[in-house]
Amino acid sequence: MPLFPLRRIASFAKPGHFISRFSSPTSFTPRRFYYGYISDSKMAPSLEPFFKHGAGLRKAVAIPSISAQDENRPDVVRMAQFLADELTALGAEVQQRPLGKQPGKEHLELPPVVIARYGNDKNKRTILVYGHYDVQPALKEDGWATEPFELTIDEKDRMYGRGSTDDKGPVLGWLNVIDAHRKAGVEFPVNLLCCFEGMEEYGSEGLDDFIQAEAKQFFKDTDAVCISDNYWLGTEKPCLTYGLRGCNYYSVSVEGPAQDLHSGVFGGSAHEPMTDLVNVLSKLVDAQGNILIPGLMDLVAPVTEEEKSLYGDISYTMENLHESLGSETGIHPNKERTLMARWRFPSLSIHGVEGAYSAPGAKTVIPAKVIGKFSIRTVPNMESADVNKLVFDHVQAEFAKLNSKNKLNVWLQHDGKWWVASPKHWNFSAASKAVEQVFGVAPDMTREGGSIPVTLTFEQATGKNVLLLPMGSSTDAAHSVNEKLDRRNYIEGTKLLGAYLHYVAEEPNSA
Amino acid sequence: MPLFPLRRIASFAKPGHFISRFSSPTSFTPRRFYYGYISDSKMAPSLEPFFKHGAGLRKAVAIPSISAQDENRPDVVRMAQFLADELTALGAEVQQRPLGKQPGKEHLELPPVVIARYGNDKNKRTILVYGHYDVQPALKEDGWATEPFELTIDEKDRMYGRGSTDDKGPVLGWLNVIDAHRKAGVEFPVNLLCCFEGMEEYGSEGLDDFIQAEAKQFFKDTDAVCISDNYWLGTEKPCLTYGLRGCNYYSVSVEGPAQDLHSGVFGGSAHEPMTDLVNVLSKLVDAQGNILIPGLMDLVAPVTEEEKSLYGDISYTMENLHESLGSETGIHPNKERTLMARWRFPSLSIHGVEGAYSAPGAKTVIPAKVIGKFSIRTVPNMESADVNKLVFDHVQAEFAKLNSKNKLNVWLQHDGKWWVASPKHWNFSAASKAVEQVFGVAPDMTREGGSIPVTLTFEQATGKNVLLLPMGSSTDAAHSVNEKLDRRNYIEGTKLLGAYLHYVAEEPNSA
Repeated sequence: MPLFPLRRIASFAKPGHFISRFSSPTSFTPRRFYYGYISDSKMAPSLEPFFKHGAGLRKAVAIPSISAQDENRPDVVRMAQFLADELTALGAEVQQRPLGKQPGKEHLELPPVVIARYGNDKNKRTILVYGHYDVQPALKEDGWATEPFELTIDEKDRMYGRGSTDDKGPVLGWLNVIDAHRKAGVEFPVNLLCCFEGMEEYGSEGLDDFIQAEAKQFFKDTDAVCISDNYWLGTEKPCLTYGLRGCNYYSVSVEGPAQDLHSGVFGGSAHEPMTDLVNVLSKLVDAQGNILIPGLMDLVAPVTEEEKSLYGDISYTMENLHESLGSETGIHPNKERTLMARWRFPSLSIHGVEGAYSAPGAKTVIPAKVIGKFSIRTVPNMESADVNKLVFDHVQAEFAKLNSKNKLNVWLQHDGKWWVASPKHWNFSAASKAVEQVFGVAPDMTREGGSIPVTLTFEQATGKNVLLLPMGSSTDAAHSVNEKLDRRNYIEGTKLLGAYLHYVAEEPNSA
Repeated sequence: MPLFPLRRIASFAKPGHFISRFSSPTSFTPRRFYYGYISDSKMAPSLEPFFKHGAGLRKAVAIPSISAQDENRPDVVRMAQFLADELTALGAEVQQRPLGKQPGKEHLELPPVVIARYGNDKNKRTILVYGHYDVQPALKEDGWATEPFELTIDEKDRMYGRGSTDDKGPVLGWLNVIDAHRKAGVEFPVNLLCCFEGMEEYGSEGLDDFIQAEAKQFFKDTDAVCISDNYWLGTEKPCLTYGLRGCNYYSVSVEGPAQDLHSGVFGGSAHEPMTDLVNVLSKLVDAQGNILIPGLMDLVAPVTEEEKSLYGDISYTMENLHESLGSETGIHPNKERTLMARWRFPSLSIHGVEGAYSAPGAKTVIPAKVIGKFSIRTVPNMESADVNKLVFDHVQAEFAKLNSKNKLNVWLQHDGKWWVASPKHWNFSAASKAVEQVFGVAPDMTREGGSIPVTLTFEQATGKNVLLLPMGSSTDAAHSVNEKLDRRNYIEGTKLLGAYLHYVAEEPNSA
């Protein structure tokens, strides 16, 4: 007798696509929600929301809201309008808030932030949810097996399409939850605030200032924040995410001659910038991932015995690592050290070289100026300024050893701080109970190796606890070709968002 | 009373361009040529050839015979026809010889080789001259100060235009010499064979086989070869070039994961191909240009005391180096070591990395597969196979030290052998006397750091001595924007080609 008895839901696949059934009638039973309000007679109408918003996801994916490409800006705006219309139809109070001209592209208006309030009951908690409605670029010829902007469901119920998992699926998940309550005639357990942006894939231009300003205005009642824009660690078990690494991104340039040189004419008689750069880059990190910058590891918070013990229970295997790498080129011998390397230790990656010859084939040029790019993923308690000083000093010292007459510069391109929340807060315990309810297991408590800068912005602007509650799985290929969201993750994930709000309403305040 | 009394030559500049005069009446006086045939009354008509072929160079530059760009192939063919017509008009026996389809671009016919014979007197020596009529790409927006395909003469008598110095000026120089003799009614001192190709800037596709075949046919009478397709060491003093370095070009790839990775998610837990590659590349050469590959320097012919003494007399200064570098980033403290580093020692340059992030800005990718490109300029007595073995062994050994689970491959992309001719051959002594006659100084005997593969092809196919007799100066910017040929180099250089043929006719056989 679940809220969403999906045994016989009609597929929303188009003719020619795979038709399938939802075979798992997993129940959705927060007590207040389950007992009392929903009678057997309401089971049939309760199918509607998913029918509608399965169609909704199809419509959303069909809008190529690519924020990085100027020519798609009207599509991004159209996607904002689509969300605003859907939210309005659901009875929410909706605003599309302009962010002004796009910095560096002043001929373009930034797409609006779609904000909404659903419910305004002083006796209920207010949860602010964030998502983004823009997507990464995608072209069929990049290697997609299907049309990227046409939701296509295969025989394993995988729903392929750009934005399916990142982040249109989760955003529509919140709309589905409202809709399901309305259709079922169930009281909504919290006041919901929505913040859906359209520039996430292009650096969230303008959003930080907006959030800072609205923290005291539209978002002022916020009791906690929930962001669904990351992924499970694997494919079977949900997780709650309470930490992110930061990122300090550096450039190091070496220049000498006034223009590129012919290596036949000048090879051997002039200092070559590329030789110097390769030398300096080779002194940053060793092949085992150890950072070679003196003093850097001293900034890292020591691992406690309690912390060590947590890693053993995480649902993750070396096979998971190998599957996601597509190779067996992991550094560490076991999952504990692998996860610690990803979550709670810094890493240094060399991304490439600008200005050198990078095409296929052969060219005998001595590049006049080359710029190496590398970044350091940061963790508690590394402060950006301290990291910068150690990096700059080390790079300059290594270059000085070369006795080259070329000129070196090293600078920070950008930084974003690491984030760690308290997983004991009621925001997390509510989400944990919701996972147990919907999936029958306790979630893994995870951190992420990457960065989601808006997380820290929400925490700092609202002063409230922020939870990352992912919907998609590790195999969803966000940002890549053949991005997908498994139908199971979409359906059960939507139930999870709903159950989370019900537990949030009941959870006592944290100690 | 010179053959070319150029005091009052009319400029061939178009209206609107700078008008200038040839102010230097440098004499052109091989004895047989000067005494006897040319009376004062013939001075005025003898201006004609340069007037005409100054115009000829303007016409030639106006044809954008860019061999690398498919859409310009008709222009390359048109340029061949232009040369064939000019040579025919001069009384030469001319053929345009097809080379078949272009490998890898089978929709394109290779442009023809224009071959010609002027004179067939068994009592004269036969000189084979080589040049090319194709050019590098050029666009005004690349930074040219003038239209690249419109010969433009500035107030310092510099003739700007793509192909002016590389290699249309020298090619027309040979035609000018024939024309001047005809106009002056002077007997041509040698039989001249011409080999003008149209694919030099795109790897001389098809030419090697053609030369090998014609060495026993059209070119079978060749007594010596002269190539005018390189440059003076500086701007004031002509040189004869008797040596070239070879080039072995290598790729080294490192691959690990099946696709590019997010550095946040995988940084620290997977071996990164870029880290490994940078490490290996840093073990090839130091910042002072010393090659770090064990055993490589043992292959290099020892420097003799006699050889050492030659470098002191070369007209070259550290200021020349700094001027061409546009910086003071030379490695060596004096010209002798600088020239030896360029001409007679090997060098190793790292050209770039394929597969890594190479654009401006920041991207936090861990590239899945990266390919480093480097080349070694080779000198006597380095045999390519020996060099390859040392390179492969060293790269593999350095990679093994890293204990990385990634996979490395290293291979030769292409090689071209070094070349050193005997500068005591009559071909060189004739050219040396011609330089003294035209310029009043003994030429520098130089080698080049770069490679001109056709040089070795001609030597091996004909078995005859090959001379490199440059027309342009070190500042001509061949392959770059604002390519030019100084009018002095064009006029005096043409006289030099003529004088060379006269001395060739008189020079006794070499010991």
